[in-house]
This record gives sequence, structure tokens and C-alpha cells, in this order.
Amino acid sequence: MLTLLAALLATPATAPPPKQPAEIVADSPATAWRAVDPANLVLFETTAGTMAVELAPDFAPAHVAAIKALVQAGRFDGGAITRVQENYVVQWAARPEGDASSVGQPPDVRPQRVRPRPLPPEFERSAAGVPFTPLGYPDAYAEAGFSGGWPVARDRGQGRIWLAHCHGMVGVGHDMPPDSGDGSELYAVTGHGPRHLDRNIAVVGRVLAGLEFHTALNRGTEALGFYKTPEEQTKLLRARLASSVPDAPRYQVMDTASPSFAAYKTARANRTGFFIRPAGGVDLCNVQVPVRVAP
Amino acid sequence: MLTLLAALLATPATAPPPKQPAEIVADSPATAWRAVDPANLVLFETTAGTMAVELAPDFAPAHVAAIKALVQAGRFDGGAITRVQENYVVQWAARPEGDASSVGQPPDVRPQRVRPRPLPPEFERSAAGVPFTPLGYPDAYAEAGFSGGWPVARDRGQGRIWLAHCHGMVGVGHDMPPDSGDGSELYAVTGHGPRHLDRNIAVVGRVLAGLEFHTALNRGTEALGFYKTPEEQTKLLRARLASSVPDAPRYQVMDTASPSFAAYKTARANRTGFFIRPAGGVDLCNVQVPVRVAP
Repeated sequence: MLTLLAALLATPATAPPPKQPAEIVADSPATAWRAVDPANLVLFETTAGTMAVELAPDFAPAHVAAIKALVQAGRFDGGAITRVQENYVVQWAARPEGDASSVGQPPDVRPQRVRPRPLPPEFERSAAGVPFTPLGYPDAYAEAGFSGGWPVARDRGQGRIWLAHCHGMVGVGHDMPPDSGDGSELYAVTGHGPRHLDRNIAVVGRVLAGLEFHTALNRGTEALGFYKTPEEQTKLLRARLASSVPDAPRYQVMDTASPSFAAYKTARANRTGFFIRPAGGVDLCNVQVPVRVAP
Repeated sequence: MLTLLAALLATPATAPPPKQPAEIVADSPATAWRAVDPANLVLFETTAGTMAVELAPDFAPAHVAAIKALVQAGRFDGGAITRVQENYVVQWAARPEGDASSVGQPPDVRPQRVRPRPLPPEFERSAAGVPFTPLGYPDAYAEAGFSGGWPVARDRGQGRIWLAHCHGMVGVGHDMPPDSGDGSELYAVTGHGPRHLDRNIAVVGRVLAGLEFHTALNRGTEALGFYKTPEEQTKLLRARLASSVPDAPRYQVMDTASPSFAAYKTARANRTGFFIRPAGGVDLCNVQVPVRVAP
């Protein structure tokens, strides 16, 4: 009884306010972060800005290899943003194969012929052995969660897992046949997570920085947000692997298996401060896995 | 047995493909649509384009009345878009009260003094008697559904219902105290539905047209996407009630209690054609209640 009384007396009259998500991120230890491998980071430079895209070889190895080959062959240099659709995607494309036109390209990086097609439909993969941290809240589509810093969903019965179409995630455009994508047309999600695309397109990565310059581009006026004329398109100046750029920013993604991420996710689901009524839940794409430049 | 055989023989060899969501919308009868009352439609004209915002007096009557009073007093004329934050909101503000500056305003519509503050925190309302069509799929936050053409969520135990923060929904900015909004600062959701804001802000309507011109504005570089200088802001030329504009477009929103909407929602959850694997579900903000100009 005395012990309980002492414990009660030792409790401060008012508990400290719960940490805000941003405070949890700021206070997280170095162990809560995964360094992005520069060999899996592509810097797409357009006249609007630079998009840094981390590729996900664990989920789409053939597509990632094809995209890296296209980057190294200079195929994206002189490409264009061909499509901007409200509440959906921004999409960019390499120059057509064999098109030797370029934007300020020295001759030695003129495009080689790269024909990785057909690529397998890497729209999902076996869930066996893939780390999975559950979201912990209901999802309209599947069992939502996180793996290696990526938003994912899985079907336990079928033993399948896939990258989820959340804001900033990058996929590979393809025509009607599922194996018709070759990695030369990429899109990033700019609006509400179009999760109906999950398992129907190869998701290959995430824009870690610079998406905001491209979400702000004028929408294309043709069907699906394609631009009517090449003049309306934003030029894609060049794409480089960060591993070939000495001064490239070194990004880190929060480790979604870390205690810091668990605390962050809980705080996102139970906002305080401005919020008089915490939601008590959060949906997969609204968690927003933290990204930072290495301190 | 013969009847069964006859029935089998009468079945076409291949069933017609299921209708696409757009086909369901195109084929829907006039009874599947609710006409938007021009007295509840505000046309916000900026130098980027015109946003048509339908107000929702059933959910936030005091806020809607205050916004209409501000519109009719000319308070938005000469205002500005003050904030554009990536994957979040575009926000605009009336001129400060008592500021007589205007953009081409004739003297007779110079601002009157309007002080509707304090407004009650109309962040949610009683669910009693409010029509509700369930989404029918899990939701991370509450029980999701539709009411009168609006995306909503409700808490059956508490008997409360509220408008949901989906892409295009419009809310009223307020400071830290819940009753500090006066309707003179409005935001529209431009990114993934920030449902954590539900029940914490008065949602007052939805942008039915013209959001794409404003989502495409440059992001503000200050905290929360505010612009650093007035020069960076997009000018709000004027705001008018559609009921005072003879040639205003007559919008219609699909009746979310109609059979057409039920078919549309099912089709959104089970996409075909390009989709080799229908999701078998859809989340509230990804349904996207159809809007059209009256045929």
C-alpha cells in the first residue's frame, strides 16, 4: 500500500504530451534508418527539377535491371514527361529506341540499343521469407503493412505480397498485355493512392524527393492526361544512377521494422495538439514512411 | 432436367464483358443524378482558373451560411491562394476584414463588415435520420459510406456522422481553438485523403470542377506550404454564388443511393479490361463520386 502510494506521489500531476510524429522522426536513433543504396537510386533531371527514385529490386528484379540498363544507356536523356493526370499520375518516357536525338548529350553516351522486352509481369511476389510489419488497421484491399521501408499489402492465403500504389510510388507503364512494359515508361502516383492498380502493374520504387515539382506541372488535356503536343511536355534532361554521381544526396528511409517506426505509426493514427479527436486508425498510404537526407 | 438444359443452351457462349465504371456513368438514367442547387455552389475565380465548390448545408449549416455571407459581401474578391502543400491541400483566403483593397471591384460590392465568428465546431453531426449507403469494404477509420452524393463516415455506437477528407473536399481552416474558424480561409484536399483531419475540422463541401488548375500551382516553400511572399500567391479575383450567375454551369452529382451508383461502386472495386486481377474492394476516397454538367 505504501509502495503504491509512493508510486502515485511520484507520478507527475500532468503526463507529458505524447510526441508528435515529426518529433519521433527527429528523435529517432541512427539504427532506425536504412541507407538507400546509391546503385538503386535514379536521379531523373527535368526542366522542373530532379526526382530521386529508389528502385526496389526485391520486388521487381527484372524491371529494376531493365530500368538501370536504360539509365546507363542514356535512353532517358532527352526523354519527356508525357502525361500528367489530376489525382492520379505523372508519367515520363525514355526516347524511343533507336532515336539518336539528344539534349546536349556527348556522343559517347548516345543511346545503345536496349531491348529488355518482354519483361515478366512482376506485379507481386511470393511472401515467403519477406519481412512484414502489419499496418494494424483495416484495409479495403488486402492485409496492409510495411516491408523494408516500403508500403506493401499481402494475401496470406495465397502467400503473395506486393508494393502498394501510394503517393510517390513508381510503376512501369504497359499496354494491354501484362508483359508489354519494358521499363522505358514510368509513372509516379500523385493523388489518392490508386490501390486498384496493385497486382496489375509492376511497381518498381518510390520518389524520395522532387515529386512536388512534377505534381505541379500543368495537366495534359488529352485522354488520361497525356499532352496534346510535344511542346507541352516537360523535357527529361538526363537520368543517372546516384552511384555514378559523386555529390548525390545520400537518402535514408525509416526502417519500418524499427521501434521508432512503430511509435511514428501509432502517433500518425492518434494525432494530438491541433487534433481534438484522434482518429484511432490510419490507412496504409496515409502513414507516409519517413525519408531524410543522411545527417 | 430439360428446363435446366434449355436454360444452359439459352446462355450465350461468352457473357458480355462487365461494364466499365465510365460506361455505367454514361448509361445512367436521369434519376441517378442529383442537381446541385446553384444557391449552394460558389464559383471561386482565380488567375489560374475557376473552382466550382458545392457547399453542404446539411453537414455544416453555420459555416455554409458564413461562407455565403462572405461571398455575397465580396470578401473573397481580391483574396489569394496562400498555401499549396504537396500531397495535402491548396488553401485560399478572403481579404482581411476591413481591407478595402480590391481587384477591379466596383464600389457597390466593396466588402461589408462580416463577422460570423465564433462559429460552432461543426466537425460532425448526429447520424439520426441521415441517409447512409455503406461503402461495403473495410475502412481504417470508421464505417465508411456515402450520403446525398458525399463521401462520409460514421460511428454507429456514438450516433455521429461526418464528411470525409477525400480528394477535392473543402474544409475551413482554423487556429488551435476548435471554434476559431470563420469561413474566410478554405482549403481543398489535393493529395491522398487526409482522413486524420475528419472530425477535427468543419468540412463544408467539395470542388466539383477546376481543382486541377490549382493542384498544379507551385508549392509554397514556407512551413505547411505557405507562400513566402504575397507576390508568389495566386490572386483570387472574385467569388460568386452560381445562383447569381445566369450562365453558370449546372452541375449534377450522382445520387449515391441510386442503383447506378451501386453498380459504379462495384465496378470500381472490380475493374476489368486492363486489370488482370480485380481488387475485390475499394476504399472510400478511391470511389470518386461521379460529377457531370447537366446534359
